[in-house]
Amino acid sequence: MKRFNIEYVQPGCKARAGVLTTEHSEILTPAFMPVGTLGTVKAVEQRELTEMNAEIILGNTYHLNLRPGVEVLKQAGGLHKFMNWNRAILTDSGGFQIFSLTKLKKINDDGVEFSSHLDGTRHFFTPETVIDIERIIGSDIMMPLDICMPNPSDYKDNLKSLEITHNWESRCLKQFKNTDSYYGYSQMLFSICQGSTYKDLRKQSIEILSEMDFDGNAIGGLAVGEPNELMYDIVDFSTDNLPQDKPRYLMGVGTPVDILENVERGVDLFDCVIPTRNARHGRLFTSNGELNIKNAKYKNNFNSPDEDYKTYTSENFTLAYLRHLFISGEILGMQLASIHNVGFYLEFMKRIRIAILEGRFIEFKKDFLKKYLQEK
Amino acid sequence: MKRFNIEYVQPGCKARAGVLTTEHSEILTPAFMPVGTLGTVKAVEQRELTEMNAEIILGNTYHLNLRPGVEVLKQAGGLHKFMNWNRAILTDSGGFQIFSLTKLKKINDDGVEFSSHLDGTRHFFTPETVIDIERIIGSDIMMPLDICMPNPSDYKDNLKSLEITHNWESRCLKQFKNTDSYYGYSQMLFSICQGSTYKDLRKQSIEILSEMDFDGNAIGGLAVGEPNELMYDIVDFSTDNLPQDKPRYLMGVGTPVDILENVERGVDLFDCVIPTRNARHGRLFTSNGELNIKNAKYKNNFNSPDEDYKTYTSENFTLAYLRHLFISGEILGMQLASIHNVGFYLEFMKRIRIAILEGRFIEFKKDFLKKYLQEK
Repeated sequence: MKRFNIEYVQPGCKARAGVLTTEHSEILTPAFMPVGTLGTVKAVEQRELTEMNAEIILGNTYHLNLRPGVEVLKQAGGLHKFMNWNRAILTDSGGFQIFSLTKLKKINDDGVEFSSHLDGTRHFFTPETVIDIERIIGSDIMMPLDICMPNPSDYKDNLKSLEITHNWESRCLKQFKNTDSYYGYSQMLFSICQGSTYKDLRKQSIEILSEMDFDGNAIGGLAVGEPNELMYDIVDFSTDNLPQDKPRYLMGVGTPVDILENVERGVDLFDCVIPTRNARHGRLFTSNGELNIKNAKYKNNFNSPDEDYKTYTSENFTLAYLRHLFISGEILGMQLASIHNVGFYLEFMKRIRIAILEGRFIEFKKDFLKKYLQEK
Repeated sequence: MKRFNIEYVQPGCKARAGVLTTEHSEILTPAFMPVGTLGTVKAVEQRELTEMNAEIILGNTYHLNLRPGVEVLKQAGGLHKFMNWNRAILTDSGGFQIFSLTKLKKINDDGVEFSSHLDGTRHFFTPETVIDIERIIGSDIMMPLDICMPNPSDYKDNLKSLEITHNWESRCLKQFKNTDSYYGYSQMLFSICQGSTYKDLRKQSIEILSEMDFDGNAIGGLAVGEPNELMYDIVDFSTDNLPQDKPRYLMGVGTPVDILENVERGVDLFDCVIPTRNARHGRLFTSNGELNIKNAKYKNNFNSPDEDYKTYTSENFTLAYLRHLFISGEILGMQLASIHNVGFYLEFMKRIRIAILEGRFIEFKKDFLKKYLQEK
C-alpha cells in the first residue's frame, strides 16, 4: 500500500498537497501536528482536538519513558488507549530531549547514557531500545535515535556525530524490520537527516538515509537558534535532495511565517510547541498577528480575538474576557488561549492546503503575511 | 409570577423538590451551584457547564468589583454577556470575603471600609453600593451585604453585628426596590440570616428578615469551622423557623454528606468550592468516596474513576491516565478532575431530587452513604 500520495504541486514553487495514510487516520498535508509530549496536548482536551480536526499529534519517547513509563503504557495497550486518542500519533525518539534537557551524557557507538531531568536517575538508550519503546507506545510514526547538534556547532563535531547518527538510524531500521507491532496495526519509521547548517553534510546525510527504506524523511537539527533565512536556505537545499515521493517533516518548526516559508520549499509535516506554550503565556495567534492578551488596551475591547479564524474561543469570548482571565490567573484563560492557538494553526494549514490545491499558494502567502505582519 | 414552586415534600423529613424560576433558567431544587467567583468556574469551560446541566452558577461581588471592575462589566452588558453564560447567576455580596480575606476593616453603621487583598487599595462598601454593583453585574439572584462572624465567636459580638446586618439588609432591600435592572430582565434579592450557633440569635434574625419582602432566604455564618453536627442542628432549627414557601440557601456547603444532611433538613440551594478546589489538588468525588488520584495504587489501574456517575472524565479516561496527568503536573489533569467533580455534584443533586419526588429520599441517602463512606 502506498502510504503517501501527492495530489498536487504548486507551479512556481515546491509547495505540495498530499495525503499520508496511517491506520488511525488520514493526514492531509501540509499538516501541523500539535505537541502532546506526555500524552496530552497541554490544556486541550482530546475531544477538542477531534473537534478542531487534528488528525495527528506528537508524543515524546524520552518523556513517556520516564512518565508514565513503558510498563504502564504496555498494560494500557499503548498510548492511544492510555490517553483515549483514536487518531494518529507520531513519537519523537527523544534524541533532541537527551541532548537539550539532560546532563552527564555519555555517547558511544552503542548508544547514549544520560541522567533523567526529573530525578537524575541514569538511563541508557540504544537505537534498539528506542524502537522497542516506540513499539510499546504504539505510535503510528516512529522517529529513530539521532544526535541533534546545537547551533552554532563545529564542522568536525558534526561530521563525527553524523556518522554515529547514521549508524544509529540504520540500526533503528533494522530493529524496526525485525520486530512487530504490539497492537495489530502497522507503524512507520521515518529518517532524520542532520548536518547542522553545513550543506555538504546535509547532502551526505540525505544521500545515505535516502538509500535506506524509511517511510518518510525528517529534517532535524534546525530551529535550534540559527537565523530564519539560513533555516529556509538549508530546508530548500534539503528538499531539493530528498526523495520526492516520501513525506518530509521539518522538526520543531514553527511560527506561521516559518510554516509558509517551508511549505513553499516542499515540507509536508510540522510540529512546534509555540501554539500551546505561547497560549499559556497569553500570546494569541490571530490573522492580524500575534497579540499579548494581557495588554491593558484589551481591558474593554469586546471584540473577538479573531473574526476570521473561527475557534470555540474566538466565536464565544471577547478580548476583554480573555484578558480578565489571564490577569486573574484563571486556568480557563490558558485553556481558551490554547484551544484558540491550536485551532488557529489547524485552520491555517487547512487554508494553505486548499490554496495549493487551487494553485494560488503564492497569492495566499502574500495576502496572509500582509495582514499578519502589519499589526506587529 | 410565583418564582418558587415546591413540587413535593418527602414524608418523614423536610426534604423538598421544587423549581426556582429565573429569567435565564429554571433551577430544579435541591440544586448545587458551582462557584465561579471571577466569572469562571475554575478550569471548566462554559459549554461544559451547559453539557453537565448546570442551571445556575455563582459569582462574587467582592472579587468582580476588583477584577474586571464595574466599568468593564457595565460596558460588557453584565456578567452573563461578559463570560458568555446564558443561564442563571447568583452573586454573593462579598460580605463573607470582606470579613475573611481583607485586612484593616472598619465597620460603622453606614458600611464597611476594607483593603483589597490584591493591592491594599481602600474600598468602601455600603448596602446601597453593593446592590448597585450587583445591578451592574446583572445577577439573577443578588445577596445583601452582611457581617459573617467567625466560629467560635462571642455572643455579645454576634448580637452587635446582627443588628448591623439586619440594618444593612433592610437598606439593601430598599435600594433594590428603588432601582431597576440594567439589562431588561428581573433580578431577585435574598436575605441572609446570621447568629452563629446561637439559636435565640438565629431565631431573632430569621423573624426580623422574614417580615421583609425578600425573594428567598439564605442561612449564612455556617460551615465556618463549627462541628458538622452543630451545623446540621442549626440548619434544622433555622428551616423550622424560615418561611416554607420561599427557597432556602445554605451558603458555602458542602461535602456530599453535608448536602444529604441539609437537604433532609429542608435546604433547597447549596454552593461550595470543594468540587473544584479539591479537583485541582487531585481529589475526586466518586460514588465510592473521595479519592486522591496521586496515590501510587492508581498507577496501573485502568478502571474508570466512577462507573456509576457518568462524566466526560469518567466515561473516557482511566484512573491511571488521570494519575499520570497529575504526577506530571499537566493542566489537563485539573481540567478533567474539575469536570468530573462538578459533573458528579450535579448528577448527585439530580438523583437526590428524583428520590424526593419518588418519596424514597431516606432510602437513597442510606444507600448512597453506605457506598460512599465504606471506602474512606
